[in-house]
Amino acid sequence: MKKWLLTAAVATAFTAQADEGMWQPHQLPDMAAELKAKGLEIDVKSISELTEFPMNAVISLGGCTASFVSPKGLVVTNHHCAYGAIQYNSTADNNLLKDGFLARKMSDELQATPGSRMYVTEEITNVTDKVTAGLSSKQGNDFYKEVEAREKTLVAECEQEGGYRCQVYSFHRGLEYYLVKQLEIRDVRLVYNPAGSVGKYGGDIDNWMWPRHTGDFSFYRAYVGPDGKPADYSEDNVPFEPDSFLKVSAKGVQEGDFVMVAGYPGRTNRYRTAEEVENQFEWVYPNAKGLRETIMDIIYEAAPEGSDDRIKYESALAGLANYAKNYTSMIEFYGKSSMLADKVAMEKELAEWINANSDRKKLYGKALTELNQLIAKDKQTQERDLILGYMGYSQMLKTADSLYRLANEKQKPDMEREPGYQERDMTRFKSGMERIDRRYAESVDKAIFLEMLSRYAQLPAEQRVPGFDKAFGIKGKFDQVRLEKMLNKAYAATKLDDKATRLAWMDKSVEEFKQSDDPFIKLAVARYDARQALEAERKQLAGDLMKVRPVYMEAIIAFNESQGKPVYADANSSLRVTVGHVKGYAPQDGLYAIPFTRLEGILAKDTGVDPFDAPKKQLELIEQKQYGDYYMPAIDSVPVNFLSTLDTTGGNSGSPAMNGRAELVGLLFDGVYESIIGDWNYDDRTNRSIQVDSRYMLWVMEYLDNADNLLEEMVIVK
Amino acid sequence: MKKWLLTAAVATAFTAQADEGMWQPHQLPDMAAELKAKGLEIDVKSISELTEFPMNAVISLGGCTASFVSPKGLVVTNHHCAYGAIQYNSTADNNLLKDGFLARKMSDELQATPGSRMYVTEEITNVTDKVTAGLSSKQGNDFYKEVEAREKTLVAECEQEGGYRCQVYSFHRGLEYYLVKQLEIRDVRLVYNPAGSVGKYGGDIDNWMWPRHTGDFSFYRAYVGPDGKPADYSEDNVPFEPDSFLKVSAKGVQEGDFVMVAGYPGRTNRYRTAEEVENQFEWVYPNAKGLRETIMDIIYEAAPEGSDDRIKYESALAGLANYAKNYTSMIEFYGKSSMLADKVAMEKELAEWINANSDRKKLYGKALTELNQLIAKDKQTQERDLILGYMGYSQMLKTADSLYRLANEKQKPDMEREPGYQERDMTRFKSGMERIDRRYAESVDKAIFLEMLSRYAQLPAEQRVPGFDKAFGIKGKFDQVRLEKMLNKAYAATKLDDKATRLAWMDKSVEEFKQSDDPFIKLAVARYDARQALEAERKQLAGDLMKVRPVYMEAIIAFNESQGKPVYADANSSLRVTVGHVKGYAPQDGLYAIPFTRLEGILAKDTGVDPFDAPKKQLELIEQKQYGDYYMPAIDSVPVNFLSTLDTTGGNSGSPAMNGRAELVGLLFDGVYESIIGDWNYDDRTNRSIQVDSRYMLWVMEYLDNADNLLEEMVIVK
Repeated sequence: MKKWLLTAAVATAFTAQADEGMWQPHQLPDMAAELKAKGLEIDVKSISELTEFPMNAVISLGGCTASFVSPKGLVVTNHHCAYGAIQYNSTADNNLLKDGFLARKMSDELQATPGSRMYVTEEITNVTDKVTAGLSSKQGNDFYKEVEAREKTLVAECEQEGGYRCQVYSFHRGLEYYLVKQLEIRDVRLVYNPAGSVGKYGGDIDNWMWPRHTGDFSFYRAYVGPDGKPADYSEDNVPFEPDSFLKVSAKGVQEGDFVMVAGYPGRTNRYRTAEEVENQFEWVYPNAKGLRETIMDIIYEAAPEGSDDRIKYESALAGLANYAKNYTSMIEFYGKSSMLADKVAMEKELAEWINANSDRKKLYGKALTELNQLIAKDKQTQERDLILGYMGYSQMLKTADSLYRLANEKQKPDMEREPGYQERDMTRFKSGMERIDRRYAESVDKAIFLEMLSRYAQLPAEQRVPGFDKAFGIKGKFDQVRLEKMLNKAYAATKLDDKATRLAWMDKSVEEFKQSDDPFIKLAVARYDARQALEAERKQLAGDLMKVRPVYMEAIIAFNESQGKPVYADANSSLRVTVGHVKGYAPQDGLYAIPFTRLEGILAKDTGVDPFDAPKKQLELIEQKQYGDYYMPAIDSVPVNFLSTLDTTGGNSGSPAMNGRAELVGLLFDGVYESIIGDWNYDDRTNRSIQVDSRYMLWVMEYLDNADNLLEEMVIVK
Repeated sequence: MKKWLLTAAVATAFTAQADEGMWQPHQLPDMAAELKAKGLEIDVKSISELTEFPMNAVISLGGCTASFVSPKGLVVTNHHCAYGAIQYNSTADNNLLKDGFLARKMSDELQATPGSRMYVTEEITNVTDKVTAGLSSKQGNDFYKEVEAREKTLVAECEQEGGYRCQVYSFHRGLEYYLVKQLEIRDVRLVYNPAGSVGKYGGDIDNWMWPRHTGDFSFYRAYVGPDGKPADYSEDNVPFEPDSFLKVSAKGVQEGDFVMVAGYPGRTNRYRTAEEVENQFEWVYPNAKGLRETIMDIIYEAAPEGSDDRIKYESALAGLANYAKNYTSMIEFYGKSSMLADKVAMEKELAEWINANSDRKKLYGKALTELNQLIAKDKQTQERDLILGYMGYSQMLKTADSLYRLANEKQKPDMEREPGYQERDMTRFKSGMERIDRRYAESVDKAIFLEMLSRYAQLPAEQRVPGFDKAFGIKGKFDQVRLEKMLNKAYAATKLDDKATRLAWMDKSVEEFKQSDDPFIKLAVARYDARQALEAERKQLAGDLMKVRPVYMEAIIAFNESQGKPVYADANSSLRVTVGHVKGYAPQDGLYAIPFTRLEGILAKDTGVDPFDAPKKQLELIEQKQYGDYYMPAIDSVPVNFLSTLDTTGGNSGSPAMNGRAELVGLLFDGVYESIIGDWNYDDRTNRSIQVDSRYMLWVMEYLDNADNLLEEMVIVK
C-alpha cells in the first residue's frame, strides 16, 4: 500500500485574502489585480462580459445553475437539479431515479418535465433611472405599483424579440435595477444521470454535511428549432449550438488551488439590520422550524413509508427536511456566533461615521431608524403570516386561490396583471396545474390544512382576518370538530383533484367561479377580498421598504467606499461570480475537515442500506483500485468531493467550479453545515462550498456507467 | 488576531515505524537502535532497569498508574484515578468533587479512601522454572492448583520482608512467570484536585472521544513511618522520599515528537485465536452490552435522577456505561475491520510454517486444535456464566457469598486459602465490606437481582445448576411472581445492609453461618457446594488452558523470531513501556483529528451545563488569552489534550507521558473511540491514546487554582 500524505493548513482565524463576495460581472475589472493574485489565469474581461467565454457557457435552469460542455448543447448540472426530470421519466418498471439513465444516442434522450427551461443570459442593462426616476414623491403601495408597472413595461419591450425571457432585478433591495435578457430554451432533454445510489449517495443524512461522497451530477441537452431559435419540444428540433462551452479537466484541483464559480445564487441577507437579525434568528427560524417538523410528522403519519402516497410526498418531505435542518443550523450557529453583537457594533460605527459629517447626516441620518420602524410594523402580524404561508402546503386551497386569482387577473389588460398571471406565465402556470396529480394525496392535504387552520383559528382575534374567519366558519371559541367536519365535506366534494377540471378552470370567468359549488372554489371566492387587502398591506410595506432600504444601503456603500472596500449586492437570483480556493476547515477545535474525500470513503460509509448503498459494481471497482486517469497522488485515490471557500448559496447548485483557465473542475452542489448561516454572515474560517470533483464525474462515467459517447463528445483536458 | 497554522500529516495506511508494543523493561536493550531512532535521548538501560531513573519514579495505584514528581513523595495521576479519594472526602457542604481541593500545606492533606495503596516496583524475577518445573504430567485442576500453590509460596517468601507486596504474573498466558516485588505504601493522601468541571470536563459524553478537553489530573502524596518504612496512616508519618522523580516540562511536545509511557496496562487479547475472536465479537460483546444496558435502565428507574440513591450508584453507572460504550465500539469496528479474516490468514500462515518442518510439527502441530477444543468447551455454558457474572451486581448476594467463602477458607492454613481470602488480603476485604454503605440501595439491588435471576430461571434446564435452582426455589415452569415474593422477603429480613453486621460476619465460623436465619446468608450456604463445583470446573479448564496456550504462544513467538520480529506479551497489569509519537489520525475519510486541542475549544464547547460547564474564572482567563509560559505557537494557544500513537489500555490511566529525556509532558488518561478495539488488534492508522498536556496542567495550577506551593515543589523545565 502506498503512503498518502496531505498537508492540511488549518483555517486561519483571520485572513487578509478573504474570499467573501458574490460579484456582478461588471464589478470584476476593478478587482483585476486581486483576481490575478488569487490565481485567475484568463483575462478578467472575459469573466465580466456575458457574451464571452466562459460566461456564455454558464446558464440558469431557474433555481439551479448549469453549463454547456459540448458544442452540441450538452449541459451538465447537479443530479438534484435534474431530479424532477429524472422522476418524471421514471416508472415502477423503469426506475431511472434508482437505476440511472444513459442515452447512448441523441434519439434516446428523454423530454424533461414539461415547462423545463434553460436560460442563457445575453444582456444585463442598468435600468435604475428608468425604474425610479421621478418617483420620489410616491409612497407605499403607489410607489410599489409604479415600480412594478415600469418593470413590466421594460420586460415587455425586451421580450418583443421572440425566444427571450426578460426580468428586472433589484440590487441592494431597490438601490439599483438591472434588466436581464435571457435566451429561453424550451426543449430540454435528459441525457444521462447516474444511479440514485451514486447521485444521491448519503441522501438527507449527509445533506449539508462533510465528509461527503455524493456524485451529484447529471446531463441535459438543449434543443432548438431547425432555425436555431428556441422552440417547444418537437422531434424535428436540433441540438442547440452554444457560442462557447467549458472543457472538462481530468486533472482537477489540488489543495490551495484557485477556483471560481459563475452562477445564479438565490438570496442572501448580508445587509440586514440588527433588529431584523435578532427577530429572524430568535423568532422566525425557531417557529418556522417547528411548523416544518409538524408538517413532516403529518406526512409521515398520513402517508406511511412504502405507500403510494409517500412517493408523492417524497419531494415535499425533502424540501421540508432540508430547511428544517437549515434552520436548526442557523439557530445553533447564531447562538455560538457574535453575529448580532457585530451587527450592533457595525451600526454604531456607521452611525458615528454618518453623524461626523453634516451632509452625510442629512442624507442618511434617519435611514436606520425609519427602516427599523417599518420592520417593527412587519413583526406585528408575523405569527399569522407564518401560519398562512405554511397553509399553502394544502394543494387544494392553493390551487383554488391561484385559479380564482387568474380569473380576476384576466379581466385586466395583460400589462396590468400581477406577475405570475400574465400571458407569458401561462405555460409555467399550466405545468404547475398538471404536476399536482403527482404530488397530492387527499389524506395528507387534508391533515396539513386542518393543522394549519387549527393553529390559525387559535390565534387571538386581533391577529386573525375577519374575511378568513367568515369563510372558514370560525366563530368565537375554537372548535376543532367543526373545522374537521367542514374539511371532510370539502375534500369529499371538490373536483380540483382532477387534472382536467383544474385545467378547465384556467379558462373560466369570475362569474363562473362565483356560481361554483366546489367547496374549495367557494373558499377561494369568499376569501378573495380579504386576500387582496392583505396583499395591499404587504405591498404598502414593501413599497415603503423599497424607498427606505436603498438609503440605508447607500450609506453602507459610502461608508465602505470611504475605507476603499467594494460592496457586492445581496444575492437575488441574478448571475454572479465568486472566487475562492480549495481549502479545508476546522469544524471543531481539534478536528480538521480535509478538502478532499476519496473513493475509499464510500467503502467505509457503505452499509448496503439506502442512502449508503453504492452500486456493487462501484464497490468492486474501488476494491480493485481501478483509478484510471483520475488518480490524485496527494490522496492516493480518486477524489470524490472537494471543499472550497467559494461564497455561494441556494441557486448556485449545479454551478461549474472552474480553475484559473476556466476549465470545469467540479460542480458545486452544497455547503457545509457550519456555513448555512453564511447567508447572513460569511465567515472565512467555516464558510465552505462542497463540489463534486470532475475526476469523480469522469470516473463514474468511464468505469461505472460506460458513458463513452459523452466522454467522446466533451473536450477533456488530461 | 494571530494566525495559527498546523501541519497535519494524515495517518499513513501502512507505516514501517509502527508504534505497536507493550514491552517488558528487560526487552528494551535489544531494541536500543530502534528506540534511539524514534527519539529516545536517555540511555536505553535506564528504562530497562527498575531501580533507575525514570522507571523508579513510575508507580502503580492498583488499576491505575502514577508517578513521583517531587523529592517529597508528591505523586501525579489522573483525576479519575483519584476519584474515589476525592469522593470519600466530599460532603454536601464541602464538595471537593465539584469545587476541587488544594492543600496549601502538608498538614491540610487528606487521607485517601481507606485501603488506598501505592506500589513501587523494585524487583522483577523470572520464576518460570520454579512455577512450572516437573509439572508436565499434571492436568486440569491439578495443574492449576499446583501452579497456584507454588505461586503462593513464592509470594509468601517474597513478602516476608515487611512493607512489600509481591505477586507472580503469568506472561503469554502461562509461558513465562515473573515474581514482582513492590514496596507497598499504605498512607496515601489527597493533595490537590481541580474542580470536577475541569477534571471531568466532557464527562461521559466525551469519554473515549476526540476532540477532548479534559483536565484529568490530580495529586497525591505518599507517606511512610518516621523510619522511612511503609506504615498505616498516622499523623506522625512523614512524606516518602523516592529514589527519583520526574521533572515536569512546561515546553511540552510538538506534533511528531517522540513520547513514551511507562505504566501498568491491564489486559489485552492480541494473541487470541480466530475462534475466540469470532465468539467474543459476535456473541459475548453484544450480549454483555445488552445486560449492561438493562442494569443501567434498572438503576435509572429505581434510583431517579437527583435522589440520594442515585448518588450511591453514580460510580456503578459510570462503570456500566463506560463498558457498554466500549463494547459498542468493539462491535462497530469489528464489523468494519478485516480482523477476523486477518486472524484466519495468520493462523493458516502459521500452520504452513509449522507443518513445513517435522520438529516444529511435533512441537506445535496440535496446539491450535487443542486450544480451540478447550475454547469450544467454555462456550457451552457461556450464556449462563454471563448472567451469573452480572448477578454479582447484587451487593447483598455477593457480600453473603464472600463472607461465607471467607469462613470456609479460614478453616484452611493461610497458604492453602484461595487468593483474596488470605491474611494479606484482609485489609482490602474489610475496606470492601465498609464501602458497601455508600454504594447500596435496597430498591436497586433487588431490582437487579430479580432481573438476573429471572433470566437465569428462564434458561433451558441443562444450562441451569441444580444446586442454584434449589436454593432459589426454581422449579419447573418459570414463575416471576414467586421469585419476586422471595426477594421481597429476603431484602426485608436481611441484616447484611448494616456495616457492623457485615464486619461481624467476617469473624464467624461456618457453623454459625449454617445456623443463620438471614436469607442472604442462607442463600450463600445453600449455593456453596454448587459454587465450589462450578469453580472446580472453571479451574479444570483454566489449568488445561494454562498448559495448551503456552505451546501455541511458543509457536507464535518462534514464527515471529524466524522473521526477526520481537514479540511482546499481552498486557497483564504488570509494568510495561510503550513508545510512540504525537500524531493525529483520520477518524473518517475527509476528516483529520488534529493532535492538539486548544483552550479556545473549551469556550466553544461550553454550554454552562454539566459536563460542559467550565468554571467562570477559567472561561474569563481564556477570553483574556492569559496563556503565560504555556503558550504553544503552532496552535496559538495553550494545548489542553494531545494525541499519540502510544499502545496503551485500561490500567495505563495516569501513566506519565515522557519526552526523550524522560521529562513529564502529559498524563495518559484515555484512548479514542476507534482504538477501543485496539485491545484485540493495534492499528497504526487509528490507535491513539489521549493525554492531558503538561502545559494545561501547569496552566490550570498557576492561573485557575493558584497552586503555587506545588508549582514550587516540583522541578519545572521551562
